[in-house]
Amino acid sequence: MPKIAPEVSKSREAFVRRYRDVRTATECICAPLAIEDCVVQSMLEVSPTRWHLAHTTWFFETLVLARETNDYRPHDPAYSALFNSYYNSIGEPFSRARRGLLTRPSVEQVYGYRREIDRRVQRLLRECDDESWRRIAPLIELGLHHEQQHGELILTDIKHVLSCNPLYPAYGDSTHRRTGSRGKTGSRGETPVRPVEWIDGSDGVCWVGHNGEGFAYDNESPRHRQFVHPHQLAIHPTTNAEYLEFIEDGGYRRHEIWLSQGWDIAVNEGWQAPLYWVQRSDGWQEFTLAGLRPLEPDEPVCHVSYFEAAAFARWADARLPTEAEWEVAATQLPCPGDSTTDNFVEGGRLHPALSRQEACGSLPLQMYGDVWEWTSSSYGPYPGYRPAAGAVGEYNGKFMCNQYVLRGGSCVSSASHIRPTYRNFFPPEARWQFSGIRLAR
Amino acid sequence: MPKIAPEVSKSREAFVRRYRDVRTATECICAPLAIEDCVVQSMLEVSPTRWHLAHTTWFFETLVLARETNDYRPHDPAYSALFNSYYNSIGEPFSRARRGLLTRPSVEQVYGYRREIDRRVQRLLRECDDESWRRIAPLIELGLHHEQQHGELILTDIKHVLSCNPLYPAYGDSTHRRTGSRGKTGSRGETPVRPVEWIDGSDGVCWVGHNGEGFAYDNESPRHRQFVHPHQLAIHPTTNAEYLEFIEDGGYRRHEIWLSQGWDIAVNEGWQAPLYWVQRSDGWQEFTLAGLRPLEPDEPVCHVSYFEAAAFARWADARLPTEAEWEVAATQLPCPGDSTTDNFVEGGRLHPALSRQEACGSLPLQMYGDVWEWTSSSYGPYPGYRPAAGAVGEYNGKFMCNQYVLRGGSCVSSASHIRPTYRNFFPPEARWQFSGIRLAR
Amino acid sequence: MPKIAPEVSKSREAFVRRYRDVRTATECICAPLAIEDCVVQSMLEVSPTRWHLAHTTWFFETLVLARETNDYRPHDPAYSALFNSYYNSIGEPFSRARRGLLTRPSVEQVYGYRREIDRRVQRLLRECDDESWRRIAPLIELGLHHEQQHGELILTDIKHVLSCNPLYPAYGDSTHRRTGSRGKTGSRGETPVRPVEWIDGSDGVCWVGHNGEGFAYDNESPRHRQFVHPHQLAIHPTTNAEYLEFIEDGGYRRHEIWLSQGWDIAVNEGWQAPLYWVQRSDGWQEFTLAGLRPLEPDEPVCHVSYFEAAAFARWADARLPTEAEWEVAATQLPCPGDSTTDNFVEGGRLHPALSRQEACGSLPLQMYGDVWEWTSSSYGPYPGYRPAAGAVGEYNGKFMCNQYVLRGGSCVSSASHIRPTYRNFFPPEARWQFSGIRLAR
Amino acid sequence: MPKIAPEVSKSREAFVRRYRDVRTATECICAPLAIEDCVVQSMLEVSPTRWHLAHTTWFFETLVLARETNDYRPHDPAYSALFNSYYNSIGEPFSRARRGLLTRPSVEQVYGYRREIDRRVQRLLRECDDESWRRIAPLIELGLHHEQQHGELILTDIKHVLSCNPLYPAYGDSTHRRTGSRGKTGSRGETPVRPVEWIDGSDGVCWVGHNGEGFAYDNESPRHRQFVHPHQLAIHPTTNAEYLEFIEDGGYRRHEIWLSQGWDIAVNEGWQAPLYWVQRSDGWQEFTLAGLRPLEPDEPVCHVSYFEAAAFARWADARLPTEAEWEVAATQLPCPGDSTTDNFVEGGRLHPALSRQEACGSLPLQMYGDVWEWTSSSYGPYPGYRPAAGAVGEYNGKFMCNQYVLRGGSCVSSASHIRPTYRNFFPPEARWQFSGIRLAR
Repeated sequence: MPKIAPEVSKSREAFVRRYRDVRTATECICAPLAIEDCVVQSMLEVSPTRWHLAHTTWFFETLVLARETNDYRPHDPAYSALFNSYYNSIGEPFSRARRGLLTRPSVEQVYGYRREIDRRVQRLLRECDDESWRRIAPLIELGLHHEQQHGELILTDIKHVLSCNPLYPAYGDSTHRRTGSRGKTGSRGETPVRPVEWIDGSDGVCWVGHNGEGFAYDNESPRHRQFVHPHQLAIHPTTNAEYLEFIEDGGYRRHEIWLSQGWDIAVNEGWQAPLYWVQRSDGWQEFTLAGLRPLEPDEPVCHVSYFEAAAFARWADARLPTEAEWEVAATQLPCPGDSTTDNFVEGGRLHPALSRQEACGSLPLQMYGDVWEWTSSSYGPYPGYRPAAGAVGEYNGKFMCNQYVLRGGSCVSSASHIRPTYRNFFPPEARWQFSGIRLAR
Repeated sequence: MPKIAPEVSKSREAFVRRYRDVRTATECICAPLAIEDCVVQSMLEVSPTRWHLAHTTWFFETLVLARETNDYRPHDPAYSALFNSYYNSIGEPFSRARRGLLTRPSVEQVYGYRREIDRRVQRLLRECDDESWRRIAPLIELGLHHEQQHGELILTDIKHVLSCNPLYPAYGDSTHRRTGSRGKTGSRGETPVRPVEWIDGSDGVCWVGHNGEGFAYDNESPRHRQFVHPHQLAIHPTTNAEYLEFIEDGGYRRHEIWLSQGWDIAVNEGWQAPLYWVQRSDGWQEFTLAGLRPLEPDEPVCHVSYFEAAAFARWADARLPTEAEWEVAATQLPCPGDSTTDNFVEGGRLHPALSRQEACGSLPLQMYGDVWEWTSSSYGPYPGYRPAAGAVGEYNGKFMCNQYVLRGGSCVSSASHIRPTYRNFFPPEARWQFSGIRLAR
Repeated sequence: MPKIAPEVSKSREAFVRRYRDVRTATECICAPLAIEDCVVQSMLEVSPTRWHLAHTTWFFETLVLARETNDYRPHDPAYSALFNSYYNSIGEPFSRARRGLLTRPSVEQVYGYRREIDRRVQRLLRECDDESWRRIAPLIELGLHHEQQHGELILTDIKHVLSCNPLYPAYGDSTHRRTGSRGKTGSRGETPVRPVEWIDGSDGVCWVGHNGEGFAYDNESPRHRQFVHPHQLAIHPTTNAEYLEFIEDGGYRRHEIWLSQGWDIAVNEGWQAPLYWVQRSDGWQEFTLAGLRPLEPDEPVCHVSYFEAAAFARWADARLPTEAEWEVAATQLPCPGDSTTDNFVEGGRLHPALSRQEACGSLPLQMYGDVWEWTSSSYGPYPGYRPAAGAVGEYNGKFMCNQYVLRGGSCVSSASHIRPTYRNFFPPEARWQFSGIRLAR
Repeated sequence: MPKIAPEVSKSREAFVRRYRDVRTATECICAPLAIEDCVVQSMLEVSPTRWHLAHTTWFFETLVLARETNDYRPHDPAYSALFNSYYNSIGEPFSRARRGLLTRPSVEQVYGYRREIDRRVQRLLRECDDESWRRIAPLIELGLHHEQQHGELILTDIKHVLSCNPLYPAYGDSTHRRTGSRGKTGSRGETPVRPVEWIDGSDGVCWVGHNGEGFAYDNESPRHRQFVHPHQLAIHPTTNAEYLEFIEDGGYRRHEIWLSQGWDIAVNEGWQAPLYWVQRSDGWQEFTLAGLRPLEPDEPVCHVSYFEAAAFARWADARLPTEAEWEVAATQLPCPGDSTTDNFVEGGRLHPALSRQEACGSLPLQMYGDVWEWTSSSYGPYPGYRPAAGAVGEYNGKFMCNQYVLRGGSCVSSASHIRPTYRNFFPPEARWQFSGIRLAR
């Protein structure tokens, strides 16, 4: 069960405003999309934009309105199954694999659904008694973080959808302002790749997990001790130039550096490079939300699977960090978004930024934003973890198997959604997330 | 190679008008659809509406304009592969299974594409010299018949798309005017099902195939003799009421009346009734282009596979007709569309019509329109058949394997598209076509 | 229902002797096999040798003994399901796909089962009364033909099993005595391939099907008229040398000569040559039941699918014969096995023989034995066909879909099993049968 | 790289004797099998007995003899690929999925292969110089542990093979002497299930991993510290009676206690009970290596997946232990096999033994032998882990993904193969191992 965040104790009106801001942010993300874009499901893991828009609304309707309103009359009874993602406690969800077969409700109807539920939620927030408020506010808070997750997924998923089109259409007109390039593009630079810079991490018995202040998901608790071994972390995320060295050194052909399962997938699917890299006669191109463009050597490599991250690390005679190592380092940094250089969705770049060059002493750079960083940690429960009761208990705990933890958020995450203790997780073969690499040793 | 049809010898202006009429008819079919509807591919065999609209245009651009225009500048070079269906002679087609992943060009852009190509084709038809005309006109004629086929597929496919949605949305507002019901709906009627009425067919050495007058596809030639054995045909297509008897008599549970391959599919896919029948507590419903409605006993059964048709025939102690038997009978009837009772797409019903009751002597009823009728004939070449040279040779011949012939057109075919010699063909497991049953013995 | 063959009217003792001969022939086929060979199922269509040995015995036990004996005590009640192939009328068969998972009953136990059932059948044949005899004899006759089919399948299947082993083990020590080679092996000969010689076939209204004398399967009836068009047949089956020309002329890379479905399979499975051809640095080798050996140019090509046969015919500007054309020609020849040159299993060669060279006037050569010849005819019911009642009715009729007819038997068929009217059938992608090509035009 | 175990420093002759003992033990395990049993591969994860016998021999030939002998002439060059399991460093292995298609070399030939390699290995061990000895002995030691693993797999795999047969044949005649039953069988006992007894585990910073004395696999190193949280362990492994309570309480129907991925698999595969349980009208039966027999309530439950173990634990309001918790507890016990009650393969029971009842103070019972115990720990590298160089480096490290650790050995493990630090690992859906449950909280 999510803890009640401090903002809940502010005036209700501020909370309503925050509700509106987060909901509007999702719609802003969808603004550049055509109706056609909002319908397609390009693979099982991807959901249509329209589905995301409806599902996040369903969350508020089903988990809040329907429970807190007497004789609740649903907006449309059919939506209950159609837009349930995986909450078995709330009836049988409409098959995930078939989300892309639905053409109705139309995009316009889904926006109508959003407006209606927003109206009802805001009225409820303003009018409920204090006892209800204490029950409702944490659920709304959870729903807003859920909304932010889906905002990120809308961008992640539409990038995959658009990439399936040989026309390589852009998501928006000139989505990201390029901040200038320092290196040669799309080929192993004449400028040699600099060696990895390392910084020392803290070791010994360390505290890990959320301390209870502000919102956190249940999987970040309880805060507990772990024994962290002496280690170093790379100061930067791995860059395209570094990854290109790996490729050109036969990284995708050398079984001995791969996990067995990863090798089988890489061979079967013909992996030769990160997901959105395209080899042209004049060098490597990369598909971005702004369309196809030459590969930028000094940006963090993105859209690699855990298997590729682990093979790269092995090739570099290093390894991936554990999530404890990552978290202990992150805890020393300013909060996500507080640094002007953090690259989150709010900045509108929607692509990892150039590797930062400033002298930085002993602190790692670009931990927050840019790319989610794969850790070597299998996603599991913290000691003493207990999932929340009821449907919201299905949020995290039941996925604690065969997935790996990623940390730090990416260029399509919201800054206000990320924390040092935040645990994202995906199967080791997933590549369509904005996922990158930070080495450890 | 398609023969030059007589209308080609009419004035060019009449031909241009016909071109416009057929092209407009396709767009009228799409008028009731939302943009969302035009994007989805609900199974491999179904194509998105937008793809149909573009592909038929591609046909004229690629097979006519690009060949007959010096220095032809394509509307968009990428369309050449995107909207090629299966013509390997014209480069590698975009994967059929991935047609539903494309969100661009948008529906509006596809309409723009149509307008542009229509403009160019009409100018070419008006301005070309006589020698070119003789080359071009038969290809345009072929393209128009091709367009009519896809017009029918748009309706067939969108019915499948809409049926995947638990909301069961209708294609249009009140698409078909019901002409009144004569029986009880949705259950084995208290009024007993009348026995099948039979009429004698012609036998002995008969001529089969197209005689060369007017347009025909290459697979209807050459005209040739077949030995037809003494037989009878049912006067009506099999009705829902008759099919319901089969179901209630355990038709889907009695392996001994099924072809082995059909039985395996029926068991694996859990077939219990025709494709769009839905069992509700108050009886059988049927999904139609006008939405869900109670099953009408006196309409021809529709959306059955060859396997179901064959099992039904075996259960009824009968068989399916050969295509020669069907054609010899049809040749005695007025041309398709000449009878006022023929139910084709032009009538706007978009659903099989009630079984006709008038006394009719020795001629079968409802041979044309309403439902495609499965024959027992495997789809193969007529003796002496040769496919046309070049890309249009891929139209028919390469599919002559593991498919069965259907005859007569359906309620979503254009009357002007159907002939007594017309051979449609689908795999024996196909159910999403408007396919029904006529018994023989 | 099989007709009572004339031999049935001979003395019972002669019939018992024939029973023993056919049953023994099956066991002779298995004699060279190790126990290990008898267990493996190398693909769905292949059954383990042990299963064949037991299943043919099950046929006699279940369809004869169990029905004709009061209070029949089965040899082992579990065998009823284990060795049922596909007779749904007799309970649910053990899954075909899992036949290779059974290790018991052991090979020795299966031989014990055979001995026991043979003893009981022979006693029944000797001791039953005349009325029973008239019921039993046709079933035994059917069972013996069934046994011969499985004898052929044992050889066909074990060839596939052994071919999966990179050691390419031989079935027997030196199974076939080579009769000498006339050409260069394994490469397109310096001696040019001779052009195909053609002979005229009969045309007009012809009789096709079995006339009722001697045994025949139900699918060969009723005898009926067909209209046969003027045509010619190749005097020889297509040879390896001819097929090699097709390969070297890009036959497997030219989509335009392939059926669409065949092209997809050929691409997906990477077909480059007939099933058992192996390309080595020093030329083509062929896996035979005697092991791997250089390809013999003058032997009929073998182990090609219908798709390959049809593509070859199209490449050669010819076609495959219809089954009526084939049968009308075959009817003029001596009975199968009567010619000393017929190459059936009894000759022990177990491989197609060299193409015969003698002058032969107007009759085709090697119609019987050597290789099954694909016809262009889809396998379907003859006009007026009715399957037999009861379980034996499942023998043929339920497979009349998506298969093509082959004629004439092969080098692993028994001469006494083949007739001019005999219809074998396999799906168009099947390659593990001893199937070859005879051209028509 | 395996460490040189102390026994290596004993006289060479003792080592040769040990080599012979271990190799002979494998053959003793196979003695009750028929040739037919040795050929079958019943699923991808199962290998034929014959393959195990050859593969362990291949290990000695390829990794020792071929490297330590000048001009080594292989026993059969083809074996190098045929019997390579997954060592990509040594050429491309024969496809795992096709091991069951091989019928040659025969079982007898494989035994011949074993004898020949044994002869050569023993000669090498006796005759090599001291420098070679120091290189060879650790590899032989590794090979012997590898051999013991495969001895266990032979029993595990053959149980699966035999279970596919509806005859439920036994592996041996009366393999395990039943030691008497204390409860009612096959139904929820009238005697109530006793509550779980808990004992306290050690917590704080603990040492985990192998200390370097005696043989260990590379994945047990390096020894390192972990922070262990306060916890309790169940004194016994979960029994059939306890598991039956879970089943009867709807354990397989309550999604909320399952991991999401486990729930999907359980539904798709129709799991209703542990792998070898069979429901009969008179109660539950269990397939054992001695055939089918009534379920014994007081035996540890066996053949459950990680998913079932985790769901059971959640149902029981407990969890699975971490591998550190398990190891810390095990370290206090006598060595595996030293206690007379340990149930390993040497005892010949080949089935988990009745739950022990003696008073036992603070130590857990049946940690070693009986059933492998699933831990909650994902299988990964210990801090500082580095795989061995060369081919033997493929032994463990490349599998560290999407698998879970099991501890303690089972009734088909060899006592001399198990250690407190031994880490076994299988994917969470695996059920054919002798895997059970010990609760923690």
